[in-house]
Amino acid sequence: MPATATDSLIFRHIFSTEAMRRLFADEARVQYYLDIEAALARVQARLGIIPGEAAEEICRHCHADEFNFATLKTETERIGYPVLPVVQQLVALCRNGYGEWCHWGATTQDITDTATVLQIRDALALVGEELQAIAASLAGLAKRYRDTPMAGRSNLQQAVPITFGYKMAVLLAGFDRHLARLRELRPRVLVGEFGGAAGNLSSLGADGLRVQAALCDELGLGQPEIAWHTMRDRVAEVGCFLGLVTGTLGKISMDVKLMMQTEVEEAYEPFASGRGSSSTMPQKRNPISSNYIHACTAMVRQHVAALLDAMVEDHERSTGPWEIEWIAVPEIFLLSAGALAQTRFLVGGLQVDAGRMRKNLELTGGLIVSEAVMMRLGAALGRQRAHDLVYDICRQVIATGRPFVDLLAENQEIAAHLGRDELAQLVDPANYLGLCGEMVDRVLAAHAIAAGD
Amino acid sequence: MPATATDSLIFRHIFSTEAMRRLFADEARVQYYLDIEAALARVQARLGIIPGEAAEEICRHCHADEFNFATLKTETERIGYPVLPVVQQLVALCRNGYGEWCHWGATTQDITDTATVLQIRDALALVGEELQAIAASLAGLAKRYRDTPMAGRSNLQQAVPITFGYKMAVLLAGFDRHLARLRELRPRVLVGEFGGAAGNLSSLGADGLRVQAALCDELGLGQPEIAWHTMRDRVAEVGCFLGLVTGTLGKISMDVKLMMQTEVEEAYEPFASGRGSSSTMPQKRNPISSNYIHACTAMVRQHVAALLDAMVEDHERSTGPWEIEWIAVPEIFLLSAGALAQTRFLVGGLQVDAGRMRKNLELTGGLIVSEAVMMRLGAALGRQRAHDLVYDICRQVIATGRPFVDLLAENQEIAAHLGRDELAQLVDPANYLGLCGEMVDRVLAAHAIAAGD
Amino acid sequence: MPATATDSLIFRHIFSTEAMRRLFADEARVQYYLDIEAALARVQARLGIIPGEAAEEICRHCHADEFNFATLKTETERIGYPVLPVVQQLVALCRNGYGEWCHWGATTQDITDTATVLQIRDALALVGEELQAIAASLAGLAKRYRDTPMAGRSNLQQAVPITFGYKMAVLLAGFDRHLARLRELRPRVLVGEFGGAAGNLSSLGADGLRVQAALCDELGLGQPEIAWHTMRDRVAEVGCFLGLVTGTLGKISMDVKLMMQTEVEEAYEPFASGRGSSSTMPQKRNPISSNYIHACTAMVRQHVAALLDAMVEDHERSTGPWEIEWIAVPEIFLLSAGALAQTRFLVGGLQVDAGRMRKNLELTGGLIVSEAVMMRLGAALGRQRAHDLVYDICRQVIATGRPFVDLLAENQEIAAHLGRDELAQLVDPANYLGLCGEMVDRVLAAHAIAAGD
Amino acid sequence: MPATATDSLIFRHIFSTEAMRRLFADEARVQYYLDIEAALARVQARLGIIPGEAAEEICRHCHADEFNFATLKTETERIGYPVLPVVQQLVALCRNGYGEWCHWGATTQDITDTATVLQIRDALALVGEELQAIAASLAGLAKRYRDTPMAGRSNLQQAVPITFGYKMAVLLAGFDRHLARLRELRPRVLVGEFGGAAGNLSSLGADGLRVQAALCDELGLGQPEIAWHTMRDRVAEVGCFLGLVTGTLGKISMDVKLMMQTEVEEAYEPFASGRGSSSTMPQKRNPISSNYIHACTAMVRQHVAALLDAMVEDHERSTGPWEIEWIAVPEIFLLSAGALAQTRFLVGGLQVDAGRMRKNLELTGGLIVSEAVMMRLGAALGRQRAHDLVYDICRQVIATGRPFVDLLAENQEIAAHLGRDELAQLVDPANYLGLCGEMVDRVLAAHAIAAGD
Repeated sequence: MPATATDSLIFRHIFSTEAMRRLFADEARVQYYLDIEAALARVQARLGIIPGEAAEEICRHCHADEFNFATLKTETERIGYPVLPVVQQLVALCRNGYGEWCHWGATTQDITDTATVLQIRDALALVGEELQAIAASLAGLAKRYRDTPMAGRSNLQQAVPITFGYKMAVLLAGFDRHLARLRELRPRVLVGEFGGAAGNLSSLGADGLRVQAALCDELGLGQPEIAWHTMRDRVAEVGCFLGLVTGTLGKISMDVKLMMQTEVEEAYEPFASGRGSSSTMPQKRNPISSNYIHACTAMVRQHVAALLDAMVEDHERSTGPWEIEWIAVPEIFLLSAGALAQTRFLVGGLQVDAGRMRKNLELTGGLIVSEAVMMRLGAALGRQRAHDLVYDICRQVIATGRPFVDLLAENQEIAAHLGRDELAQLVDPANYLGLCGEMVDRVLAAHAIAAGD
Repeated sequence: MPATATDSLIFRHIFSTEAMRRLFADEARVQYYLDIEAALARVQARLGIIPGEAAEEICRHCHADEFNFATLKTETERIGYPVLPVVQQLVALCRNGYGEWCHWGATTQDITDTATVLQIRDALALVGEELQAIAASLAGLAKRYRDTPMAGRSNLQQAVPITFGYKMAVLLAGFDRHLARLRELRPRVLVGEFGGAAGNLSSLGADGLRVQAALCDELGLGQPEIAWHTMRDRVAEVGCFLGLVTGTLGKISMDVKLMMQTEVEEAYEPFASGRGSSSTMPQKRNPISSNYIHACTAMVRQHVAALLDAMVEDHERSTGPWEIEWIAVPEIFLLSAGALAQTRFLVGGLQVDAGRMRKNLELTGGLIVSEAVMMRLGAALGRQRAHDLVYDICRQVIATGRPFVDLLAENQEIAAHLGRDELAQLVDPANYLGLCGEMVDRVLAAHAIAAGD
Repeated sequence: MPATATDSLIFRHIFSTEAMRRLFADEARVQYYLDIEAALARVQARLGIIPGEAAEEICRHCHADEFNFATLKTETERIGYPVLPVVQQLVALCRNGYGEWCHWGATTQDITDTATVLQIRDALALVGEELQAIAASLAGLAKRYRDTPMAGRSNLQQAVPITFGYKMAVLLAGFDRHLARLRELRPRVLVGEFGGAAGNLSSLGADGLRVQAALCDELGLGQPEIAWHTMRDRVAEVGCFLGLVTGTLGKISMDVKLMMQTEVEEAYEPFASGRGSSSTMPQKRNPISSNYIHACTAMVRQHVAALLDAMVEDHERSTGPWEIEWIAVPEIFLLSAGALAQTRFLVGGLQVDAGRMRKNLELTGGLIVSEAVMMRLGAALGRQRAHDLVYDICRQVIATGRPFVDLLAENQEIAAHLGRDELAQLVDPANYLGLCGEMVDRVLAAHAIAAGD
Repeated sequence: MPATATDSLIFRHIFSTEAMRRLFADEARVQYYLDIEAALARVQARLGIIPGEAAEEICRHCHADEFNFATLKTETERIGYPVLPVVQQLVALCRNGYGEWCHWGATTQDITDTATVLQIRDALALVGEELQAIAASLAGLAKRYRDTPMAGRSNLQQAVPITFGYKMAVLLAGFDRHLARLRELRPRVLVGEFGGAAGNLSSLGADGLRVQAALCDELGLGQPEIAWHTMRDRVAEVGCFLGLVTGTLGKISMDVKLMMQTEVEEAYEPFASGRGSSSTMPQKRNPISSNYIHACTAMVRQHVAALLDAMVEDHERSTGPWEIEWIAVPEIFLLSAGALAQTRFLVGGLQVDAGRMRKNLELTGGLIVSEAVMMRLGAALGRQRAHDLVYDICRQVIATGRPFVDLLAENQEIAAHLGRDELAQLVDPANYLGLCGEMVDRVLAAHAIAAGD
């Protein structure tokens, strides 16, 4: 039975997703190797480097289900790398010794790296879909709650009113930036590796670059400028991207956890019977997805550091750092997939309590819009004087529990400029939403353009 | 099929071990839960809190193989935590409603944390065995090669001669420190958790602490001073310990990689046919274990940071940080086990080439013992003068390629104090091994005492 | 002007302390070097290795204020390490060439490492004082609020009642563990380094170990088993310890931030006029120390990973990893000192609002003690049946807003076992504090014993 | 005196640069604040929001040297943030109460974040210059040593021949990717922050977005889509970029360290008298820059994780995570600057020993081109058969020490296909350089285009 959280029979759909697990499963990895070996054979036959019959026979057997995984394991442990054992089985599967023509001019790491790039390509496709789905949900929430007032919070203190739609639009803008990053990194990262032992294609003579170009083309990848066996910025960049994406997911989960607090109750994770229930406290409604997102995010950022560590490679093929990627690349994608899926679920079914938001907004008896009063007074008294005056009155409100508006109206300096009605208007949070609506519209408009291209 | 490197059918014995994987497998985790539920029932029956028949019936069904893992998975995804689903199945397995008496007064985290401590206990036992085995091998090497000269290296430059036994004794002393750390942390870390919802045992009335003490005793664990649901220094301390241990393994692997270089060839990983062979470069003898140790170590140190992150928990039961441990604790043990097993194999079968060590020692034509000359001259000329003089001659040796001893003998200032024979003696590396032998003996003696207690 | 946060003229007392900065300042480092050089000279004179007059003259000039720091900087940049430049100036300061006898048989790293250990010793003394002061404050709070009820929270949901004293006692127990760790690591970590170029003391002949023992003794340090130039578990262990300590500080800051929320307001950072005020929101009372603690903690845990990374050293003297410590050791202590000082201030002047705690406890209309009802009913109906029943009634309370006690009393199955008066008693949070008081007493008793020894 | 390595009087030019330190010094930070306050006043006067005289008076005093830093420190410690204290001093400096109009509608974080962006802009300019300078040096080395044979190494084993120019071109391609990343991130990252307390510009009424646009324009920054007070992907992205850049620098330093080994000696750091000398081992020539680069890189990757951690912010203005940036942003730039400057120095003056490269290439007696033999034979015997045959002969060469070419020529199966002359040709490393030259040309051509645009 599996021992890691992401492979665990029990936790695998909590900390990862089936779609992502499938890409990094042993069988998938071997199949990626075989897809590359097959593409190489086809390309080399086409270029007249190996016999056409050999290529046909090789391609015929490039199916992971023909391979013996027990032998593969034993041989990998013996040799240290799985590619040669796969090649050995492939050779054995081919009749007439045609298998001898497979893997022609390639080195172990050519196949492994190109397979990793194919995994990254397919995994980024999954990530991209999740990002778009989350962005779509956030756009929906931003639109729907464009004008729903709630407390904006700074340092976990109620600060000034905002709208829930505005809160969602701030997040949405972040996802549009992530999607832009994804577009930019793809052409840089999705290139093949094919250079032979030290990357200089010595084993293929003058044909080398032609084979390299054709192989990359056959696989739908870009051709690298030169070998990158020990220049791992591409892989680390993907890790950084996932670190940035999950950082945003962590922020979302933080806000949801805080909004779900017994003392706040403004928004909830989607409810399902029994979800988040406690064995001993039946009244509770625990955040669940938020917790998982928090944990996955915390792991992912450490995997980013590990992938940066893996960049410090030696000479033409490294001695240890490369193997960091073997562990970290699957994990960072698995955990990112978990965080993305949990966020998609959470955002897709978020329960919003606009009434409670409004009620919390009134908790401070108007103090939350002290800034409005201060700004209005500032125009008359100067910013600093207004600040000091309002600051003192706020402290009195807190000390005495008397209504803000009353204490303001009683102050002579203030009364000289503002009447009680005007003050009452000023201390209504719904009258102090600033440009929330316009800002939501700006972000939605930009999102519509970005999503449309 | 598994998707992580440590669960992978192909890589699992490379990056981890079967013994460690078994402790963290799903089945094992459920069995740990059930062992605790059974112990709790026994203890509570003994204290007259639940009926004896109930305890008997509960214990009869506390076997993981009676449990339906598919249901467990579905229910865990629904509820968020696996303990309640296990309890539900246990209740259902018991006749006469006796199951209702299981889990009495416990909260989900009591069971989970205590299970984690049991896993840690068993996992540390494996770690301890590996540490002792490696220490024993190092002690053997230190003894055997106590007087075998080789180049000591500083900044990857040959510095002064040492012996290979001395090099091993330096490592051995580190392992003895790790074993001392292990002894110290065990009583602090190996305590149970049993406090109910917020740790104050409110659900059990006055009996609470008696049950807690008896339960911990029944499980062979210490009783905690107070609940530690959100004080995770114990778990993080275990992570730190593994970080320290693997740090030392990383150092070993670094030295072995460097000694295996084509240009050095002083020591080798154990040879097995085909091991470390390349698909394209038949002459190579690659380090293999060293690479895996390097990679596992790089991952482990980031998991330490993740476990420290998990300490920043909120209130009485945390909202996300705890789940970091669910991912990181298995992983850090799995990867540490991999690094330990690879190191044990490597150190146990290390191939040492004393002849090549001697040959490399002569590479600099005596420059490696320039310190000996400098110290000897220092007594006569003053340290700084001697340093400057020898430093200049060294540069001449490098520039001209002439023997060190000749240039020394030709120098008037030196000749005034040392004859050519004395100089020839001085530049023989085997005459300048310092206290390597004595130091080996000191470490071996301390190790024998430590290992004996 | 300084560019880092910890040296910044503006932020230095926010993110660090003057006492800690003093230990790691350039002048202090040079003085530590000189203290060691002086001790070495004294010891070697005593053992007859260098002339007594030389030792006296050397010691006479081992004062950092005699040294030219500009030259020191230039020479350090030229040579790469500051010890040789210090030695050169020391030689020049001594009359009659006596200076030539300084640094006898030592290597750069001997001095640097021993200086680091002296810095660690003095820095740990500061850390120990802070830990004790914080523990004393927590003990005071635990005692004072032993029986003050408040909501225990799980997953940021009100779970069951606890007392504020209990919450403090949980923290206190953690500090007592940290103090135990500190006691354990000191003898292991506080050892000198003195081995010469490759650690085998070749430059001192047979006298080496005697000099080493006497030097360590002179400095009040332990003698190492063998050289540890490239075995850095000691330094990394100190980093781990600081990671564990700050992890706990991070937990405290998290709880305080959450308790200070506008919607919670149960406890506050110490108030000082203007502290935590906003330029635009006069009503706010921001957490300040908590934020700094959070940030320092987040940095420290990554420095732990860096110090573990520094363990992967090569051969007898490393090529890069050692320099990680040069950066990370000062930083981790500086930031830890900042977090400790902020925590000491925060805990020492924490403002507790017992009235608001009580009020928040009533927010759920009794649901917070649903466990009490469930446990009481469990004895009659079985745990699972009681759970399901109470769980459903809780949901009804939430849906209808009707009092918990009413809905409980109306239920036939419940009414058969419990009368309304008994139910009213059950739903009073102050009647369901479990063993909070006893647990506080246990922890205080253990603390008194630990603090007394 | 400073206590951190980057501010240290002694180490500051080792681990950082003066140019970078200047951008993050206290005085610079305050000046950035004042530049923004001045720009804001100008813009608001232009838009008729504040009086023109006020703006003039404010701008007249926006010079850091008019400010009292001691007061600034005290007030920052009292309030928690430095912006309000700066504003207070600015107000006091202005005559006629004009100062009251400064900071109009802004919040502390608006100024701080925009200042951070300006620091990032200027710091990235320095980084960009260093990248270009290093790339230029690498291009020079790639061109000069295009055809200089050396051993390509895999797993620290000599693998197949390459050229030193090829080795440099691999690095160069990485720098061109970094420069492309820099171009892409600039427009996304270099945007201002101006939103008021919760980002919705409520304090400025309908004018808000116009002021925001004009302010950003005035400062040469882009306008944000919406507030990003708690969406920190921009700042973290910069951290990731520096992590990627230093990762490559770490790779360079690793290769140089390895090439400088006593047993290899193929390339050296630039020589300066005394540089890298040892107090006790005059013959050594230590790597110095390489060590510093290694250490800075190790720190930077951990700071990346810290900056990703800082993304997990709460609500509209965060409670702790933001302060992580205060520490980490200066540090990551300071350390990156140190690594870049050391690399620029190292690469700019790298000493290459082509003769020793050639000599090392002959160390294996031709085994290094066993692949050439294998590929040539593969065409005749099949890849697997050729591999097994050559593999066995290599083992014999190693065991017997006899020349590779002799054993090949004696083998019947081989002799049937290849004569001794042909074999002798095959085992000359200089005849097996693959496409190194072509690849160098490709990378240089791409670099010329990139550098030209």
